[in-house]
Amino acid sequence: MRALLLSASRVGDTPYLVHALPFIDALLKSTERELLFVPYAGVTISWDDYTGKVAEALAPLGITVTGIHSTDDPIMAVRQAKAIAVGGGNTFRLVTELYGQQVLGAIRDKVQGDTPYMGWSAGSNVAGKSVRTTNDMPIVYPPSFDGINLVPFQINPHFTDYVQPGHNGETRSDRLNEFLTLNPQERVVCLPEGTALSLDGNKLTLLGDKGGYLMRFGDTQRIEEGCDLSHWL
Amino acid sequence: MRALLLSASRVGDTPYLVHALPFIDALLKSTERELLFVPYAGVTISWDDYTGKVAEALAPLGITVTGIHSTDDPIMAVRQAKAIAVGGGNTFRLVTELYGQQVLGAIRDKVQGDTPYMGWSAGSNVAGKSVRTTNDMPIVYPPSFDGINLVPFQINPHFTDYVQPGHNGETRSDRLNEFLTLNPQERVVCLPEGTALSLDGNKLTLLGDKGGYLMRFGDTQRIEEGCDLSHWL
Repeated sequence: MRALLLSASRVGDTPYLVHALPFIDALLKSTERELLFVPYAGVTISWDDYTGKVAEALAPLGITVTGIHSTDDPIMAVRQAKAIAVGGGNTFRLVTELYGQQVLGAIRDKVQGDTPYMGWSAGSNVAGKSVRTTNDMPIVYPPSFDGINLVPFQINPHFTDYVQPGHNGETRSDRLNEFLTLNPQERVVCLPEGTALSLDGNKLTLLGDKGGYLMRFGDTQRIEEGCDLSHWL
Repeated sequence: MRALLLSASRVGDTPYLVHALPFIDALLKSTERELLFVPYAGVTISWDDYTGKVAEALAPLGITVTGIHSTDDPIMAVRQAKAIAVGGGNTFRLVTELYGQQVLGAIRDKVQGDTPYMGWSAGSNVAGKSVRTTNDMPIVYPPSFDGINLVPFQINPHFTDYVQPGHNGETRSDRLNEFLTLNPQERVVCLPEGTALSLDGNKLTLLGDKGGYLMRFGDTQRIEEGCDLSHWL
């Protein structure tokens, strides 16, 4: 399998997806630059506009983009895709649509057959074992929290250990500790904005110079750019 | 019905539940100072410890506290309660247990029969129509997102419109706008820490000097302390 799981579409105030272009360029072979884009996580942007925005951002790499929602048969579109991308937005909306359109399993099968997958934010979250470590609001009740399971652990995108001054709500670390307390057998890769996971066969690597964290119950380990994480597969 | 729905157990660096004592004192008659406490939202604190912490905080008002988890029959405990409190923590854990112990409906029936209800954070969230506007991480998959429905709208506790510098993840307002975009018929009361809703029969009032917001799709209205919100019932 080949996958690029980006924390976010931006880092700091860089333009949309620009920081990710070198990673995407490395992921897609010249014969794979026809992307099937899944905009289902988009809520406050139309799926047409979302697809157009991604197409514009990826044009410098010679990539063409088709929105899965504009195809007659989403399952067939997945099966025939040269490459698949799942964008960010609301994870609950995304999962609800993936199940509703019955394409979640089709995406897993296709990527296991060596079609490259890329995702950012919600699109990375859903590539993990489940979406139980999303940061998003549960605006709709999905039929399951199970993800595409391209990697056998949880992802926390947009990771930050920032604590808002004077606020008493849980911090990100509090929330992830709650997850691991209730699910002590699970593992979480925390990806700050600007970082990504690169999966290439049996090799898993951290991309991006912000570093990240591997979390298990009672144990948090700092990881740096280029770190080989293959032992977590 | 009588209910006190607190945004949070603290405001700023005040001690646990101290800012809420005057509100709680006003809610509970002298004959109602035996509280059945529901600690199900607690994840990283044991339910015994959580119950003890609440008992200690409420002792100055002459309130005694029993944890529902320490009773032989939770449903019967609800039916016989003089007053019911549901504490904060993780909303998904709370809802999963309320359904698992089959007490959600029993609490609604009991409160509709004029037994006072108080909640904070997750305990306020679940008192609304559903938990689709919680801020919490979905660490466990509940059988439903439906709440106790003591009030016919959504609550967003710990409300803040703070934007973390340099962060590209969604703000609270982004998330609530996504909820209302997908569910344009719904309404949300946003409660900053330190505020609460007081329900007394057909009267609904905002407590606390931080103000709050009423949100509908495309419309956000600022509300102030003492504001009569009965038209939202």
